[in-house]
Amino acid sequence: MKLTILFGGASFEHEISIVSAITLKEKLSTFTLEFIFCDTNHQFYLIDTTQMKASTFSKGEYKKMPQLQLTHGGFFQKTMFSKTEYKNTVLNLVHGGDGEDGTIAALLDFYSIKYIGPRVEASVFSFDKRYTKYYAEAIGVKTVPYEMLFKNEHANIQTPYPIIIKPASLGSSIGVSIVKDESELDYALDVAFEFDDVVVVEPFLEGVKEYNLAGYKNREGKICFSIVEEPHKEEFLDFEKKYMDFSRSEQVLKADIEDALEKRLQSSFTKVYNNMFEGALIRCDFFVHRDEVLLNEINPIPGSMANYLFEDFAAAIEELSLALPHKKRITTNYEYIHSISSAKGK
Amino acid sequence: MKLTILFGGASFEHEISIVSAITLKEKLSTFTLEFIFCDTNHQFYLIDTTQMKASTFSKGEYKKMPQLQLTHGGFFQKTMFSKTEYKNTVLNLVHGGDGEDGTIAALLDFYSIKYIGPRVEASVFSFDKRYTKYYAEAIGVKTVPYEMLFKNEHANIQTPYPIIIKPASLGSSIGVSIVKDESELDYALDVAFEFDDVVVVEPFLEGVKEYNLAGYKNREGKICFSIVEEPHKEEFLDFEKKYMDFSRSEQVLKADIEDALEKRLQSSFTKVYNNMFEGALIRCDFFVHRDEVLLNEINPIPGSMANYLFEDFAAAIEELSLALPHKKRITTNYEYIHSISSAKGK
Repeated sequence: MKLTILFGGASFEHEISIVSAITLKEKLSTFTLEFIFCDTNHQFYLIDTTQMKASTFSKGEYKKMPQLQLTHGGFFQKTMFSKTEYKNTVLNLVHGGDGEDGTIAALLDFYSIKYIGPRVEASVFSFDKRYTKYYAEAIGVKTVPYEMLFKNEHANIQTPYPIIIKPASLGSSIGVSIVKDESELDYALDVAFEFDDVVVVEPFLEGVKEYNLAGYKNREGKICFSIVEEPHKEEFLDFEKKYMDFSRSEQVLKADIEDALEKRLQSSFTKVYNNMFEGALIRCDFFVHRDEVLLNEINPIPGSMANYLFEDFAAAIEELSLALPHKKRITTNYEYIHSISSAKGK
Repeated sequence: MKLTILFGGASFEHEISIVSAITLKEKLSTFTLEFIFCDTNHQFYLIDTTQMKASTFSKGEYKKMPQLQLTHGGFFQKTMFSKTEYKNTVLNLVHGGDGEDGTIAALLDFYSIKYIGPRVEASVFSFDKRYTKYYAEAIGVKTVPYEMLFKNEHANIQTPYPIIIKPASLGSSIGVSIVKDESELDYALDVAFEFDDVVVVEPFLEGVKEYNLAGYKNREGKICFSIVEEPHKEEFLDFEKKYMDFSRSEQVLKADIEDALEKRLQSSFTKVYNNMFEGALIRCDFFVHRDEVLLNEINPIPGSMANYLFEDFAAAIEELSLALPHKKRITTNYEYIHSISSAKGK
């Protein structure tokens, strides 16, 4: 099948997206792939597939490749004498800002481009950790209790130490700190507020187990689950380790958990997915604490699409590409303007 | 001041947006205005200001006017020999889909165009009545109790009659019905599900008072309120009456309410506005029922910008245009790719 991987973006996770795209080139080698790069200036480039390597971007070599523009149904390249169009289904692989905050989704929707990835609403509810909490609360999925802090406001934290400090709207552990006592607080807040004006504070739960589960909905309306992984982490992944994590391509081992727990994780996943995340392959990161399943995070565009959690990742992407929602086209017949104009006699 | 009014859109409120734009042409006659029309095919046209009348659109005459493309910082018109740019601040006046669902906001953000209007997140939380409930709940603002129905699911409504049936994601009373008893239910649901796959059901509250309040935040961080209006309505406005409502340009009378109630409405408004709606002039429609203030609806792009609620509407728009948020530009130095490449020795 044909697929266009859209990656890059003006985001703190720009480089991670490049690593993800390079990883997918290998994992989807049976596909006919095109790669479209969005640089931090929001210019699109068609990347020669043989040049899909880190130095193409870090050395700025991509700038010599063809620049693309958006058009209805896809992208196009205009030269003096011709116009070449690129109209395959797009896989939105822009992590973080642009890709996961709804911007790219809106762009693709506006230009009627078919894409794998979260729609605008799904992006808003997963990108900002506060809104994930609102959403989880509304659909009856438990999360870790939290409080919010705003930049330039005096910090008056109620949660007992140790706590976790997170910028509200970033993934990949960027700006996240575990704070053991008050002496470490100011520094951790300075770091987090570098990245966002809103910070989420959560208790650091001792003895918590972490499980990751990915999935998507197929054409028949069935949720297709990945295996459950218990990520082997140090206290938590720093950015550089997480970065390496985004280039994972080996299938992982299934977590050694009872069927009943797997079912509970799947049931929480289904509540989260339906119907908000249609069109996307998402990964939910859960905590299990005192026998309660808690939603920690929704990754609507997981690193390298969580390929390592699927037995047949290429088949999963192909199946998902047949189940993409499309917006109803709304037209108008100017009925009201006609009736009002005639009522006014003009 | 210079301002570009962006209107139209592929939405059930397309015609309403045209009426709003024509109204603003009069209300902002001291401004240097440009009008950019987005048709239902998502093509942009520069409308000759002297042709800002209903027939230009209903008769398709706009198609003879210059077509525009998006570019960084604004719109441009390309002819054989020249490229004319239009880079004023934009007032997003696209009501309903596209304009209020975050699509246009994302487009303007992506192309770094300054605009008056809700950002993507604010759009998502106000466009869909469910998400407005989630948001209000989270910020501690009361709303009317509700339940949701999904298309193709058996309706099992718990709310006692009479009830109101509303498509989740439409404004302007489109598809809304008051249902007095079960005999009227099926028809009302059919109508509502024409417009959306999700329907919100609320009790029809007897003896409720309705109050509208608009406002925006200025450069000093102060919320500037309009007068409070008590809209004189029939049972509720049907689409055609509401449509006429969007062309209102006469300033209305202040509602005859006590200062204490006005303060309570302003206090609820402030909770809703901060900081979600920065950059927008919004109108909140409140109910007062049994002495409780309930948020009914947030209009992040109210009809004709609720000009009739402001003593000096032009001054309000000018003040707001000086208080527009802009996204921090994120760049990258490819630090991680460099460090990983050197660790790998390539």
